[in-house]
Amino acid sequence: MAAAQEAHNREAFRQAVVNTLERRLFYIPSFKIYRGVAGLYDYGPPGCAVKSNVLAFWRQHFVLEENMLEVDCPCVTPEIVLKASGHVDKFTDLMVKDEKTGTCYRADHLLKDYCKDKLERDPNLSAERAAEMRHVLAVLDDLSAEELGAKIKEYGITAPDTKNSLSDPYPFNLMFQTSIGPSGLSPGYMRPETAQGIFVNFKDLYYYNGNKLPFAAAQIGQAFRNEISPRQGLLRVREFTLAEIEHFVDPENKSHPKFSEVAKLEFFMFPREDQVSGQQARRIPIGQAVSQGIVNNETLGYFIGRVYLFLTQLGIDKDRLRFRQHLANEMAHYAADCWDAEIESSYGWIECVGIADRSAYDLRAHTDKSGVALVAQEKFLEPKEVEKLVIAPVKKELGLVFKGNQRMVVEALEGMGEKEAMEMKVTLEEKGQAEFLVCTLDKVVTIMKNMLSISKEKKKEHQRVFTPSVIEPSFGIGRIIYCLYEHSFYTRPGRDGEEQLNVFRFPPLIAPIKCTVFPLVQNEQYEEVAKSIARSLTAVGISYKIDITGTSIGKRYARTDELGVPFAITVDSTSSVTVRERDSKQQIRVNVDEVASVVKGVIDGASTWSDVLWKYPTHSS
Amino acid sequence: MAAAQEAHNREAFRQAVVNTLERRLFYIPSFKIYRGVAGLYDYGPPGCAVKSNVLAFWRQHFVLEENMLEVDCPCVTPEIVLKASGHVDKFTDLMVKDEKTGTCYRADHLLKDYCKDKLERDPNLSAERAAEMRHVLAVLDDLSAEELGAKIKEYGITAPDTKNSLSDPYPFNLMFQTSIGPSGLSPGYMRPETAQGIFVNFKDLYYYNGNKLPFAAAQIGQAFRNEISPRQGLLRVREFTLAEIEHFVDPENKSHPKFSEVAKLEFFMFPREDQVSGQQARRIPIGQAVSQGIVNNETLGYFIGRVYLFLTQLGIDKDRLRFRQHLANEMAHYAADCWDAEIESSYGWIECVGIADRSAYDLRAHTDKSGVALVAQEKFLEPKEVEKLVIAPVKKELGLVFKGNQRMVVEALEGMGEKEAMEMKVTLEEKGQAEFLVCTLDKVVTIMKNMLSISKEKKKEHQRVFTPSVIEPSFGIGRIIYCLYEHSFYTRPGRDGEEQLNVFRFPPLIAPIKCTVFPLVQNEQYEEVAKSIARSLTAVGISYKIDITGTSIGKRYARTDELGVPFAITVDSTSSVTVRERDSKQQIRVNVDEVASVVKGVIDGASTWSDVLWKYPTHSS
Repeated sequence: MAAAQEAHNREAFRQAVVNTLERRLFYIPSFKIYRGVAGLYDYGPPGCAVKSNVLAFWRQHFVLEENMLEVDCPCVTPEIVLKASGHVDKFTDLMVKDEKTGTCYRADHLLKDYCKDKLERDPNLSAERAAEMRHVLAVLDDLSAEELGAKIKEYGITAPDTKNSLSDPYPFNLMFQTSIGPSGLSPGYMRPETAQGIFVNFKDLYYYNGNKLPFAAAQIGQAFRNEISPRQGLLRVREFTLAEIEHFVDPENKSHPKFSEVAKLEFFMFPREDQVSGQQARRIPIGQAVSQGIVNNETLGYFIGRVYLFLTQLGIDKDRLRFRQHLANEMAHYAADCWDAEIESSYGWIECVGIADRSAYDLRAHTDKSGVALVAQEKFLEPKEVEKLVIAPVKKELGLVFKGNQRMVVEALEGMGEKEAMEMKVTLEEKGQAEFLVCTLDKVVTIMKNMLSISKEKKKEHQRVFTPSVIEPSFGIGRIIYCLYEHSFYTRPGRDGEEQLNVFRFPPLIAPIKCTVFPLVQNEQYEEVAKSIARSLTAVGISYKIDITGTSIGKRYARTDELGVPFAITVDSTSSVTVRERDSKQQIRVNVDEVASVVKGVIDGASTWSDVLWKYPTHSS
Repeated sequence: MAAAQEAHNREAFRQAVVNTLERRLFYIPSFKIYRGVAGLYDYGPPGCAVKSNVLAFWRQHFVLEENMLEVDCPCVTPEIVLKASGHVDKFTDLMVKDEKTGTCYRADHLLKDYCKDKLERDPNLSAERAAEMRHVLAVLDDLSAEELGAKIKEYGITAPDTKNSLSDPYPFNLMFQTSIGPSGLSPGYMRPETAQGIFVNFKDLYYYNGNKLPFAAAQIGQAFRNEISPRQGLLRVREFTLAEIEHFVDPENKSHPKFSEVAKLEFFMFPREDQVSGQQARRIPIGQAVSQGIVNNETLGYFIGRVYLFLTQLGIDKDRLRFRQHLANEMAHYAADCWDAEIESSYGWIECVGIADRSAYDLRAHTDKSGVALVAQEKFLEPKEVEKLVIAPVKKELGLVFKGNQRMVVEALEGMGEKEAMEMKVTLEEKGQAEFLVCTLDKVVTIMKNMLSISKEKKKEHQRVFTPSVIEPSFGIGRIIYCLYEHSFYTRPGRDGEEQLNVFRFPPLIAPIKCTVFPLVQNEQYEEVAKSIARSLTAVGISYKIDITGTSIGKRYARTDELGVPFAITVDSTSSVTVRERDSKQQIRVNVDEVASVVKGVIDGASTWSDVLWKYPTHSS
């Protein structure tokens, strides 16, 4: 029952956060006066300011500090691009329909809810059944449409709202479809990620970078997923802001020149093996994780470290942040390694950043589809002598035997790897023939010695041409912001000891408004001072809010604590003013002329609050 | 023929700009390796940096300095919202189809091209015909589908590519349509403007602002228009970034507290009357334009002034910028006044910002459709005695006569304006009956004296409830940026006197990269110095590019002049370095330790280039 209590507490905490967020317009359900649309949210004024601060910091931390090439591509994307990337065919979720009302559900969600509910609420569940439920939850992502359908039938799962029976699961493509141009003949989609815009520009970007690797391109923009049934509030939405980096690197050298700068960082990591063997995430220095081979390569490790710095500087609690390695079954078949930055929230551990080594998959896919070679060259200082495998099928002999299948056999022979080819050479020399599987024909054929010559030849080469690997850190900005809200929120008793006051402890970098200006009482003199301070704040680029209402100063503090405003300037004389820090509630007195620069200093990090506490007279409230 | 030469020069200039922009990846036709999509462009690295600088300055100049409420709403929009705004029914262009191939064209474009071509290239055109062509061009925007079709037939206009005959013109809706959710039953569109997201949130935003007017909300985001046949390169595209402000104001008081701050600004204005009487735009102080009633009100005037400051600070040439008032036939029927900031480019005068007083139209439309009252209240300090018109239909009498039509008659009577009602009162008293048009019945009925009482009563009111007016400055960011490119571009002779070098004279605020760092020769010492300068630049937030290639310093300068980089730091010793300014090519020597802060000072505007020229030793190149 401790678990039930904990679940209840989490729920209550979330309600408190979400109530504050909605009441203070951090976000607004979109098109609310028309009763809204599931999975669409607006950022209201403070939320929009937080988002713009997070993105500005992202640009500073990644694009500027790493000299990345930022691009900005359209959301509307023609079908051919998303056909090449695989999204048209594979970007689907399995859906079931209420057979009477037609209401749609995600099949895996229904099965997951059923199993969780059994485990949490069924006191009569046998140990054997409980184990089965846990197994289903563990393999949920791997189930095929048929397997999911079978489970739904077996457990007698019905539509949650009506208890009607459900259709068999079938794939639903999650992209918003549209049509480009007036003819209706050019299908397009709203992009489901920003990455493809970068991949198709690889050739130009590589040239822009002086034909040198490694380099990274970055993009911030909207992405769209037509979720079947959005849930978890701000965490699973139909339109969201992604910030993605595509770091292009030589597959034979994934070292990173700045790796040493992050190598000593230590944080919670959750390697694949530890997950499988049922252990907990543990603190590992990223340098060690790379040297021990837990993380595949330095570049991947470098980005993991940089993501850690980014998130914790935003205000994410480092003890509720972990880097979890994808299990083999989670990872795309082409990926070399993949780690998710997961942040703990009231909904559990949430994937907020994915950091994947996608190998050469994406560039190869677009090379194949477009016919434009998306490759890099390494020019040798002097020509290199290389031994090259030469596979020369004798087409005439092959044609005589395989006739119409000749092309498939030739392609399969030419596609042999070095090891396989050299083994066949030996077999052909020893036995005069060899058995050979032609996948495209789905059968084993017999290759005779006269059909094929295999040799190794020495050649002089002046350059190496290769498809770069891509390391992709991909940030779900909305998810990060939501987790930040939860990690920043706390309550403290109000002055009368009864009502709880809400506070967001945003770092100044992220706070939607950096500072408030309050004339203590409503009089013209104080308002003039407040306005002159406001002008100084604007001049130094600090966002502020003036509150000239006659409300008590305590109430005004409480109102801005709820917005996470780090500093309040109260005008209580015409020569000097009181500056109050949000979390400590400590106050200092500063001259009117100085106050903008003092506040700016603390906000920019040029000085700390302790510095100014030491320097200026304190003031008890 | 002077006109033809001028047209040729404009075309040549545009080609030079566009070649540079494409070659240096300011922009890239989207999905180029798949042969692109008309009307879709990517911002490459320098273009993306320029855009992000323009948007940051927009936020500073409007949102921060004016304390606006910034919001961020989704692009995906349900049909009901755009039905209310009128876009579903009226956001169309007239289209004709090639009757054989089905290729689509904008009807007005074809007619426009035909008339222009006749005027420019037909030496046998009679004076009478020429006058007709000019008339057609003048009224082009007013022609109905039927009138356009008749002209196309009359002139024998055919499909430009095939010379096939054309269909009659018919309306094509310019919104990208999609479907929200898996059922396929909820139509949605990609928003054609960002404004609607603000209007539907009026109630929450008004509350957030302490239930006080005036206030402004702002939004930056993508908008989408499925153009029939995009042309004019970057000026007419299918997806673009808008920055929009909706300033809500009491319709009875459109004064602006900060108007005096802009009143003395003087710039080119082109009032309606001057356009009609064939005059030129002329310089008018905005204060005078408002006091003389040329501009409808102070708030509209204030924003015109602020837009002028914004554009010229970006680098738009003030002599190629004018504010043109909409003619009566251009303006939406509900608009009180509307001015476009037009910028002259090689394509002619381009509308880049629209500044419109949209009256209460949008809020009323959403109030009607949603049933949620989007209104403001003015609380009176003490109750006011007001005379109110009371129209009291006697439903019993009306019912006897009008039966099933009673409701329509009652609604029409209650909807009378004060003037109409008082006239009817007189007529009824004098004649005992009155004729009355009921629009919803489309007929005139006779109202008898006993069916209606009309009176004026005195009432005490505690507040006034009203729908605010909206003043909307709306910025086409891509268009502004393109015009900025043209206004910033110039060429100068290269050192060998033959090749022309291209330069963008971006102000530091907008320049994609603020500064370059060049080691004069390739050696380890200089590269170390370059790296340490780079670190200092990053620390003070200045974006830079290092170029360590062995290319001649002249070539490296030329390369960065083409990107509009204002300052170059050449490392030619280990203690001090040369700083070169882009446009004057003047050079000074500065200590290595100081250089980052000197460059930052000039970029931030804390000091000018003349200041530093005076302070540091100059250096001839």
